[in-house]
Amino acid sequence: MRAARLHEYTDEMGDALSIDDVDRPEATEGDHVVVEIEGAGWCQTDNHVIEGMWEEQMNQSLPMTLGHENAGVVAETGEDVTVVSEGDAVLCHPAMTCGVCRGCRRGQDMHCENLVFPGLSTDGGFAEYLLTNERAVVPLPDGVDLTEIAPHADAGITAYHAVKKAARELNPGEHAVVVGVGGLGHIGLQALRAMSAAEITAVDVKDEALKLAHDLGAHHTLNSRDEDVADEVDALTDGSGVEQILDFVGADETLDYAPNLLAAGGDHHVVGYGGHVHEPAQALVNGDFDYRGTLVGTYPELQELVALVAAGDVELRTSRYELDEINDVAEELERGEIEGRAVITP
Amino acid sequence: MRAARLHEYTDEMGDALSIDDVDRPEATEGDHVVVEIEGAGWCQTDNHVIEGMWEEQMNQSLPMTLGHENAGVVAETGEDVTVVSEGDAVLCHPAMTCGVCRGCRRGQDMHCENLVFPGLSTDGGFAEYLLTNERAVVPLPDGVDLTEIAPHADAGITAYHAVKKAARELNPGEHAVVVGVGGLGHIGLQALRAMSAAEITAVDVKDEALKLAHDLGAHHTLNSRDEDVADEVDALTDGSGVEQILDFVGADETLDYAPNLLAAGGDHHVVGYGGHVHEPAQALVNGDFDYRGTLVGTYPELQELVALVAAGDVELRTSRYELDEINDVAEELERGEIEGRAVITP
Amino acid sequence: MRAARLHEYTDEMGDALSIDDVDRPEATEGDHVVVEIEGAGWCQTDNHVIEGMWEEQMNQSLPMTLGHENAGVVAETGEDVTVVSEGDAVLCHPAMTCGVCRGCRRGQDMHCENLVFPGLSTDGGFAEYLLTNERAVVPLPDGVDLTEIAPHADAGITAYHAVKKAARELNPGEHAVVVGVGGLGHIGLQALRAMSAAEITAVDVKDEALKLAHDLGAHHTLNSRDEDVADEVDALTDGSGVEQILDFVGADETLDYAPNLLAAGGDHHVVGYGGHVHEPAQALVNGDFDYRGTLVGTYPELQELVALVAAGDVELRTSRYELDEINDVAEELERGEIEGRAVITP
Amino acid sequence: MRAARLHEYTDEMGDALSIDDVDRPEATEGDHVVVEIEGAGWCQTDNHVIEGMWEEQMNQSLPMTLGHENAGVVAETGEDVTVVSEGDAVLCHPAMTCGVCRGCRRGQDMHCENLVFPGLSTDGGFAEYLLTNERAVVPLPDGVDLTEIAPHADAGITAYHAVKKAARELNPGEHAVVVGVGGLGHIGLQALRAMSAAEITAVDVKDEALKLAHDLGAHHTLNSRDEDVADEVDALTDGSGVEQILDFVGADETLDYAPNLLAAGGDHHVVGYGGHVHEPAQALVNGDFDYRGTLVGTYPELQELVALVAAGDVELRTSRYELDEINDVAEELERGEIEGRAVITP
Repeated sequence: MRAARLHEYTDEMGDALSIDDVDRPEATEGDHVVVEIEGAGWCQTDNHVIEGMWEEQMNQSLPMTLGHENAGVVAETGEDVTVVSEGDAVLCHPAMTCGVCRGCRRGQDMHCENLVFPGLSTDGGFAEYLLTNERAVVPLPDGVDLTEIAPHADAGITAYHAVKKAARELNPGEHAVVVGVGGLGHIGLQALRAMSAAEITAVDVKDEALKLAHDLGAHHTLNSRDEDVADEVDALTDGSGVEQILDFVGADETLDYAPNLLAAGGDHHVVGYGGHVHEPAQALVNGDFDYRGTLVGTYPELQELVALVAAGDVELRTSRYELDEINDVAEELERGEIEGRAVITP
Repeated sequence: MRAARLHEYTDEMGDALSIDDVDRPEATEGDHVVVEIEGAGWCQTDNHVIEGMWEEQMNQSLPMTLGHENAGVVAETGEDVTVVSEGDAVLCHPAMTCGVCRGCRRGQDMHCENLVFPGLSTDGGFAEYLLTNERAVVPLPDGVDLTEIAPHADAGITAYHAVKKAARELNPGEHAVVVGVGGLGHIGLQALRAMSAAEITAVDVKDEALKLAHDLGAHHTLNSRDEDVADEVDALTDGSGVEQILDFVGADETLDYAPNLLAAGGDHHVVGYGGHVHEPAQALVNGDFDYRGTLVGTYPELQELVALVAAGDVELRTSRYELDEINDVAEELERGEIEGRAVITP
Repeated sequence: MRAARLHEYTDEMGDALSIDDVDRPEATEGDHVVVEIEGAGWCQTDNHVIEGMWEEQMNQSLPMTLGHENAGVVAETGEDVTVVSEGDAVLCHPAMTCGVCRGCRRGQDMHCENLVFPGLSTDGGFAEYLLTNERAVVPLPDGVDLTEIAPHADAGITAYHAVKKAARELNPGEHAVVVGVGGLGHIGLQALRAMSAAEITAVDVKDEALKLAHDLGAHHTLNSRDEDVADEVDALTDGSGVEQILDFVGADETLDYAPNLLAAGGDHHVVGYGGHVHEPAQALVNGDFDYRGTLVGTYPELQELVALVAAGDVELRTSRYELDEINDVAEELERGEIEGRAVITP
Repeated sequence: MRAARLHEYTDEMGDALSIDDVDRPEATEGDHVVVEIEGAGWCQTDNHVIEGMWEEQMNQSLPMTLGHENAGVVAETGEDVTVVSEGDAVLCHPAMTCGVCRGCRRGQDMHCENLVFPGLSTDGGFAEYLLTNERAVVPLPDGVDLTEIAPHADAGITAYHAVKKAARELNPGEHAVVVGVGGLGHIGLQALRAMSAAEITAVDVKDEALKLAHDLGAHHTLNSRDEDVADEVDALTDGSGVEQILDFVGADETLDYAPNLLAAGGDHHVVGYGGHVHEPAQALVNGDFDYRGTLVGTYPELQELVALVAAGDVELRTSRYELDEINDVAEELERGEIEGRAVITP
């Protein structure tokens, strides 16, 4: 089968991956599930993987097929699999987890001690077929477009997971700032609208993104290129600040919002990455605030997100690409030129 | 009356405060309470105040009497006060709060919009008498030594508040690291022992502090001058890391423990300050961990701490000083030479 | 001034209250606030008060003016009041609380040790003027209709408080049952829609109530006179049961829903009352479920509800009555003939 | 092998079970684990099973081997098992769960949709060998006495689970009542001491049980035969009531403690069963309290309990019996004559 593979780390996105011909994976273990891919989302993390940013943490060995936002149809199952059978439409949670370590047993499958992450630690879904396992596949209701839903497997669940933590802390009349209305941010914004009655301010550097935020229900929008975000938030909240920041960008500049925007006791959720948190401890003490890292989300959370999608509460903006166009996608995302979320259709 | 006052910010601790003769405060508002001071603890924050580190946040105007860890006997009350009367022994919560803003009403009195902080934003307790209000005074059970308990008013409650957050996340068999077994840390360690069944490792640079930690119930101790803390913690936890870090130091070096010591999903509580958090956002994302700022604690938490003290679960190590010796205390603390917590007895 | 007062407990609603001429209350304490009443909602609890059901718990002495859902304009303030001034439009939290007991300080003002409850433990708002205090008055934004908002002071906040607890436990795709779409229920239903993405089934005995529920966003409706609620819920949830029951009725029959409708680990929130919980302990053990009593809500929660109203997320259905018609209201409510919530306009 | 089996429901404990000769179970599925039993605790629930009280909920078919508190040594494993291997000492969580339903994935394994409960829904551990699965076996540290630890598999974990919920709500200085210091209660009491700094009052009808409670750290003890529990609790708490009740008895009389003993906002944890909750809804509303059912506990909680035992925080009082004496145990427990927890050693 054909698969888009990384052979060496590079900063040149234009020819980072090559389309190789490789063996189709097979279900050799009792819990294995082979999925014929209908859609595989391209993620900013794929660019980071190409740059080598996850080499160490994920213990990668090249060549490796990328792609960790996968949806498709079950092609083969191991003998112990009961949750799905051949022909079922599924969305793939990005992690293959073991189910018997303490993390899995506590419902924190992203903390699995035996976690395998196709597309980051082993072959992923930019290919005709993907090997995953029973604990990773979410059966989908009829009528779901498999290409449209694919990016929810990682972008969606990651945004949802952060929003769920934030929503639990947000009461009606309180304020949240959504930083970055791109692939993750526009999902997070919609989930936040559905799950809370908070007042939402969207921040981005692009006016089109802010237009989208407005259409999706943001109460206020700020272009951080043109406006002083701290001053504007101060005005919007009568000086009290916001309770929650959802930072889908994670640049130096946005990571510095916490001490300047947050009300006492607030949280800055770090979802995007690339920059550094750099603050005096005194700022955290005086502001009584938290930086909260957020790593993907759990399988049950992916079920919850699918329920939001099925109820029409969250819609995804996607652009489709062939497998052969994959390096173009990498380049365009690097230049910030992708509309919505790019999905590869192998 | 005599009061130890700061007239200008300085890095010279040796003659930072002068003993002035000032008017005794009076209860001019209905909720005022005047306390005759029996003990007033000296805190690292007093050194920071002298250096000017809180000038801006606390909107200070000099000269100002320092001292925010106060205990004594009620000398006078405003006409609306019902909670205490003249002659009652009290421990003073460090903040005078309003009781009618949203923060106070939600039980987050440290987020009071009208907060006044004697010793940081107005005259404090290094004096014969202190002016505070009804919402700040905790009546004490009979037999409590007012000098011994004074440091709990800030050091104690701050340590307790952080420990309470950590204890809620700690299950039996899980691990916590207590960083710094000084004034706050030795209180925090005892509170953690009383409120959880977690396994505790104490970290300090002084062997006497580690000896104290051992005596107070720490299961393991590490001298970070001599040992690689990350390696040792790795060994103690079979490679899984610790669930909670209570950082009573807050130096650059200790603030960097989070990515190296924490298990996935853990928390690094920032209680001490002076250094900077400096981490890539990717570290927070990959480790799924939080930095949690912690600002003092609430009045009900001070009641809870008094209950711990009354039950014998928390003991304080103190050294007593006269008001005239106050600059010596500042200097000795700066040099790390104070045994336990210094208390001024005006 | 004129006031509707109860002189003796009775089961005859038709002439329960008499319109007396009494002295206008005055602000004799520093925190007192006198409110000129614009609207005072009639509540099922008023009928229960007339029947003597709250005599003991509220330590009542008759005659007493009823009315605990009050809104109006500040007419006079005690000298220490800072939150409002004469002429301000306010909604009155039903309880006058002290602000200095442990309950108040923890943000649980309904647990105030010194709680006074106008309309239940002292004179209420079915009168031209009401005496309350600073901790009870919520300033309202401009343009709020004081008659329309009055029932939120108790019906609204009680429904909101229960919904807030339930919403925190409800994930997208999970199910809630709202039992009783009357005064409280139709508010609760709207709040639940605004604060969660759960699937909602409304249950009532009247088709008009179910029609209203549908219009307000319930996903399913069941008439418990005509349908077997347990069977229908079983079908709607594929046999798994619902996660949360909000019981605004509290009759023997509805209180028995818990073991028959709830998924393992669910909650049955007891808001309405009149009937008994009668279940074998084994049912709670086997179903791993809770009965959760719910007593009004806090002042900050009333602020949050006002924010929901201001955002258009919650609308109230009211019918207006003169003070002279008050006994008719009592009778009509007893017969279930009131449209929406009855509000007295003294 | 020999196994103690129930052939028909009966109220006669004296010859309820017969010792049959049956086939040894084998590991026929990939996740199967066969355990050679070293100790199997006898539980009040076994008496209830004999009486037929669980026939319907557990969908039982007789004859069935009882015994759901099992510990022993792994004798055989299915081919996919990684957590244990032959010869390992294990404590058996009472439920065989699937690991792929939503309950399991959320960390609520007791809510498993495919739960099998050896000793209640299929053959249990009053036999030489037990068939269970990988998700049920907790590996034990060296040196643990397998007979001593067996009752923790159900009595222990159930007590621990309830205590964990209660401990999270209990602050230092607050009060808890432990009702019934028998098999579960004496474990719960110790766990509560280890995990909270609350003040504990133990209630029982037997003075020896109260003596044990005192020895295990209860601050107060009450014999409910001789003393008015509500009056005494009122005196012990200065009239404010207790925050948490842990009811290990679950009789009509103890289930009525909630409205009489609880402070506003408190919880009555229903662990024991046999009696009925029978309260007016108004009591739950006015007292703002909850009845919280509690069904066993999770696998990670059993790990946590093992950690408490290993740390010496929880000790079990046991009496040992041969398999042949099993009906005597049933009778003696019925008459309240067992010292500590009875353990069968097949």
